[in-house]
Amino acid sequence: MKKTYLLAPGPTPVPPEALTAMSMPIIHHRSPDFIPILESAKNGLKWLFQTDNVVLILASTGTGGMVGAVNNFLSPGDKAVVVRGGKFGERWSEICEAFGVLPINIDVEWGYAVKPSQVEAELKKDPSIKAVMIQASETSTGVLHPTREIGEIVKKYPNCLFIVDAITAMGVIDMPVDKWGIDVCITGSQKALMLPPGLAFVSVSEKAWKANESAKCNRFYFNFKKERKNLEKNQTNFTTASSLVVGLNSALSMMKAEGLENIFKRHERLANATRAAVKAMGLKLFAKESPSLALTAIEVPEGIDGGKLTKIMRDKYGVTVAGGQAQLKGKIFRIAHLGYFNTFDIIIGISCAEMALKEMGANITLGKGVAAAEEILLKF
Amino acid sequence: MKKTYLLAPGPTPVPPEALTAMSMPIIHHRSPDFIPILESAKNGLKWLFQTDNVVLILASTGTGGMVGAVNNFLSPGDKAVVVRGGKFGERWSEICEAFGVLPINIDVEWGYAVKPSQVEAELKKDPSIKAVMIQASETSTGVLHPTREIGEIVKKYPNCLFIVDAITAMGVIDMPVDKWGIDVCITGSQKALMLPPGLAFVSVSEKAWKANESAKCNRFYFNFKKERKNLEKNQTNFTTASSLVVGLNSALSMMKAEGLENIFKRHERLANATRAAVKAMGLKLFAKESPSLALTAIEVPEGIDGGKLTKIMRDKYGVTVAGGQAQLKGKIFRIAHLGYFNTFDIIIGISCAEMALKEMGANITLGKGVAAAEEILLKF
Repeated sequence: MKKTYLLAPGPTPVPPEALTAMSMPIIHHRSPDFIPILESAKNGLKWLFQTDNVVLILASTGTGGMVGAVNNFLSPGDKAVVVRGGKFGERWSEICEAFGVLPINIDVEWGYAVKPSQVEAELKKDPSIKAVMIQASETSTGVLHPTREIGEIVKKYPNCLFIVDAITAMGVIDMPVDKWGIDVCITGSQKALMLPPGLAFVSVSEKAWKANESAKCNRFYFNFKKERKNLEKNQTNFTTASSLVVGLNSALSMMKAEGLENIFKRHERLANATRAAVKAMGLKLFAKESPSLALTAIEVPEGIDGGKLTKIMRDKYGVTVAGGQAQLKGKIFRIAHLGYFNTFDIIIGISCAEMALKEMGANITLGKGVAAAEEILLKF
Repeated sequence: MKKTYLLAPGPTPVPPEALTAMSMPIIHHRSPDFIPILESAKNGLKWLFQTDNVVLILASTGTGGMVGAVNNFLSPGDKAVVVRGGKFGERWSEICEAFGVLPINIDVEWGYAVKPSQVEAELKKDPSIKAVMIQASETSTGVLHPTREIGEIVKKYPNCLFIVDAITAMGVIDMPVDKWGIDVCITGSQKALMLPPGLAFVSVSEKAWKANESAKCNRFYFNFKKERKNLEKNQTNFTTASSLVVGLNSALSMMKAEGLENIFKRHERLANATRAAVKAMGLKLFAKESPSLALTAIEVPEGIDGGKLTKIMRDKYGVTVAGGQAQLKGKIFRIAHLGYFNTFDIIIGISCAEMALKEMGANITLGKGVAAAEEILLKF
């Protein structure tokens, strides 16, 4: 008998409430029965994003939302500042190139956050820049970029949009989209929203809709203007992933019952406990600054094979954490704490890491990480 | 207490086996536990498509598969013959235009099938044509286009691809993709595959892969070359809609147990029974030739409000059928018989139509349609 635990930064565990809702017979997405479901999901997303603007619902993963953010607001030849501080920063750059948008890359050493002044310098240098793209939380490194501060800067440029991949930030940290001046904000279903993958959500500001009028990138499946028009009537442009929308409502109900402030506090509590445990175990956080509240990236101790570590955690103990991606493969492991996570998910993750590392010969005192986590966890 | 019945041509009812499979805890799409699931789905799709080529799995609805079919194999300025015999034919045209491909439209009166000679004439006229695009089953009119025959024609043109939207044909009619020379064949999860919407499946021939090498349309989310490379390792390029893939395996298992031949016979039986019932009721099929085995489009009798008819069927009896789309709005109603459908789904649909039409004052003899359906259904 194997009990499994999903502690990866997406997909995250789906609560039984949402699983049960999604296992009900399918509802036709154009039927009157579906209208209140879509309407409620639409309003719930506005609540979550803290925005008065529309939040579009797309039948794709988060990457589809990122693609739509590029090709609905920009034209071939446009310049965009891209913060590349990890694998997902690189993705912004690749999407731009795929559609003829010219990325001006700010390369940030992985594990560090971009400095707002770096973004400002680029904008001052070239007033024709049409967008700034960042990750609010760079999932590959576990680092938060300074979204609020960059938003303040971009606000000063009337022809420049602030496009934020908030895929592992929305519903984790307090990120009031309107207040922070985020013109296009993207998240996905399989992160803090506690659902299976298959939906992307994108908020769009009035400034961005204005840019949409002249944006010439090719688009069809991700046509935001048509999505907005349909969503006004509680419809989607094409068929939506309707069972996931049903689950979305269930997840949003749970989140509303908890309240935004409590959600952010819970993530902070779990992140603090995880970080304290990591330090107590004598391990190093990979994030040298601004660690994300969504996940903790941990350096694999010298002499230990990172690939083997995550394999033992998974195969012997049933605990799925994430390894490192791209250049970080084998060098870090990542314990998530976003979405349907609470106290004992952290205890399980730390306890499992202690046992697996000990077994592999690392210098670990069993229980020390767990004790440090408990120290934090009992306080709230 | 309301019992509801979904008799629309997509989404179609999801069998409890698949609903249950999808309500299990989520599996990480990059974990070893997911590999056999994706491998089995991949092989099952090849079986269903009757192809030795790869069948890609995309996290989108069928329209995403259509977009990918255009932008992975064509370049701006390329010409493509598009058969427009309904709303989905028009969609091919719109997608081409969105990516700079020049559609040569063959407009077919709605309710009729294209003649293979019409396609051949265009290809003879202009040898630079790069693709022919059709619907195998045009869902908006309930008509089958002659896919096999057109395939024979396109085979003779080494630089022309045959791209088929088989969204309501695959798993309904015998459509051996390789034998019929279909280079790119698309279906979606919410039709004969009996799943919620959110996945598209696309087979790609060697001829199409060759065209892919020089195809210049912009693409990123739908990058078939990268999807193929990943699928070889039982992975997907980006995150997939993993819960739907789990359901896909469950649905494919049911389909394999039934066997392709039996599946096609079942659809034929249900289609025949529906058509016989419609005629016995004194109603007219909208399809003037080649009626689809996936759905039956029925003309609303004169003096009856089609919108009100489908509303009564739904609100009073809990039976969701489809109305007409675009120019057919209010003029037809469509009873589906694809996917998880059997004998009594047809009886319910016909019985409901009889009662609703009678109530609305149409000249209907109650039970006459049902009797005609039974006449066919008891024979098999």
